[in-house]
Amino acid sequence: MITGGLGFIGSNLAHQLAALGADVLLIDSLIPDYGGNRFNIAGIESRVTVNIADVRQANTMNYLVRDREVIFNLAGQVSHIDSMRDPHTDLEINCHSQLTMLEACRTHNPSAKLVYAGTRQIYGKPDRLPVDETHLVRPTDINGINKAAGEQYHIVYNNVFGVRACSLRLTNIYGPRQLIRHDRQGFIGWFIRTALEGGTIQVYGDGSQLRDFVYVDDAADAFLRAGATDAVNGGVFNVGGPAPVSHRDLVTLLLEEAGTGRVNFVPWPDEKRKIDIGSFYSDSSKFTAVTGWRNTVDLRDGLRRTLAYYRPNLARYLEPPS
Amino acid sequence: MITGGLGFIGSNLAHQLAALGADVLLIDSLIPDYGGNRFNIAGIESRVTVNIADVRQANTMNYLVRDREVIFNLAGQVSHIDSMRDPHTDLEINCHSQLTMLEACRTHNPSAKLVYAGTRQIYGKPDRLPVDETHLVRPTDINGINKAAGEQYHIVYNNVFGVRACSLRLTNIYGPRQLIRHDRQGFIGWFIRTALEGGTIQVYGDGSQLRDFVYVDDAADAFLRAGATDAVNGGVFNVGGPAPVSHRDLVTLLLEEAGTGRVNFVPWPDEKRKIDIGSFYSDSSKFTAVTGWRNTVDLRDGLRRTLAYYRPNLARYLEPPS
Repeated sequence: MITGGLGFIGSNLAHQLAALGADVLLIDSLIPDYGGNRFNIAGIESRVTVNIADVRQANTMNYLVRDREVIFNLAGQVSHIDSMRDPHTDLEINCHSQLTMLEACRTHNPSAKLVYAGTRQIYGKPDRLPVDETHLVRPTDINGINKAAGEQYHIVYNNVFGVRACSLRLTNIYGPRQLIRHDRQGFIGWFIRTALEGGTIQVYGDGSQLRDFVYVDDAADAFLRAGATDAVNGGVFNVGGPAPVSHRDLVTLLLEEAGTGRVNFVPWPDEKRKIDIGSFYSDSSKFTAVTGWRNTVDLRDGLRRTLAYYRPNLARYLEPPS
Repeated sequence: MITGGLGFIGSNLAHQLAALGADVLLIDSLIPDYGGNRFNIAGIESRVTVNIADVRQANTMNYLVRDREVIFNLAGQVSHIDSMRDPHTDLEINCHSQLTMLEACRTHNPSAKLVYAGTRQIYGKPDRLPVDETHLVRPTDINGINKAAGEQYHIVYNNVFGVRACSLRLTNIYGPRQLIRHDRQGFIGWFIRTALEGGTIQVYGDGSQLRDFVYVDDAADAFLRAGATDAVNGGVFNVGGPAPVSHRDLVTLLLEEAGTGRVNFVPWPDEKRKIDIGSFYSDSSKFTAVTGWRNTVDLRDGLRRTLAYYRPNLARYLEPPS
């Protein structure tokens, strides 16, 4: 079972699971402006089951979790900008729903194992680099606070109720099937779209800030590995990129691979500066030690694959979701 | 304005503010089994305004926060046992309501200053002692997770929206006006009631676990000091006791001062062992450095004063709230 199964990471994970012959149930609410997109499962429609539902609905979740061995729990509100405009909705989707899902497992399928999609965003502005899991959790926006709570619920249910669960703290993930209709779900998808459309990518400041990027197939592999071993239960794990890259270098690489688009360096908007965290990159060695996971796709190769995916399919990611 | 103003710490704070001649508005929902008790403001009824309301109600809060200079934000669900039985209600009261309160200030009184009642519980089982504010936040129950989120909301509203706020991470507080009708709101009030009634205090294990205890007048003084200085804005501060004391020594002291009651050491119940955190005591030097606050009442003196308060008033704390 994958919650958020029609979304970016969820659907890529679904493709991997379908290829492995798994019995796959995708749950998605297809809320407009979130990441769900029916086209994301093109090619595997006949090999997966899709159930449209909202993870906040307790009765529905109580029914759907039954008999599922592993639940990849990726449904969520991921826009930190939206979370600052409407904090109550972010709370509903990122906290209330997680409790509903965990209660569903506790009461209706206590032998299920959950892998939660956490985020490096909960660390906030780092005290040191790279950031490992001993770093303080100090979110700079409402979304980060609620994602941290959602993660901690999983750990408490693991420790207290024996519902096996862990969290993967994902860094910036990129690749095919990401939402690019608007710019409120991370900058890299927006940059890719802008390059493909021959537009001008806006980089704040001098672009010297560092980030690490994980190609979505590697992120999906991290979920598979976490789902396959009980050694991760009760743990939180960074899942980060192969090496830090500046925004400037990212855009240079992207424009080279795209062959279209331009870049423009603009001053920081005050609103964004306030919740900016400077450079960030994470240390994933804890997760590698436990599961053997590592990045297999470097940034240039990943961008090339991403562009190759979107070029023929761009229209499917610009129209409103159907 | 004090949310949870008829509760334990809120009402003691109200007594101090009334003595200082402040214009005091007490908000309380008087939810049965929570800490609110009308008798807590006996003697100051004519000097404070009481408004029964639920902090989850946005329209009501939007109205009530207007013109308030300082908001002592103490309303909450404080039972970690209840939070594990009904996590959604804990979320409603400890997260949803905090966003409602902060949104009320942002939109209707952005010059208000908030002091949030945080808890040492969010640290979970400590890696080192004493625990200072650089220690990881790693709650062991749903209540701790939600209290951590409530605290972080305040810090984000301070940093992003300029609504001045800070959090005091309170350790075990004891003293007059605490709920002692049931044993789900901390063990010390329950021990005091048991001693006064000549009953047997149950101590788990050998009672060697350490805790630090703050007399409620000192806790109220911490809120006053935090409310009076902008140097705390955006900060989180431990408010801990003068010195760590074992459960065993606490009970010995209490029985000496009470002159009634007995103690019995019993094995740990499995359910409680699972969410127990071992010894805990906190380092409050950061708060002392900023505000000059320190403990003025030691444990023996505090217990003596507490017993002296409850002896003539015990019935007021055993009957259902009116």
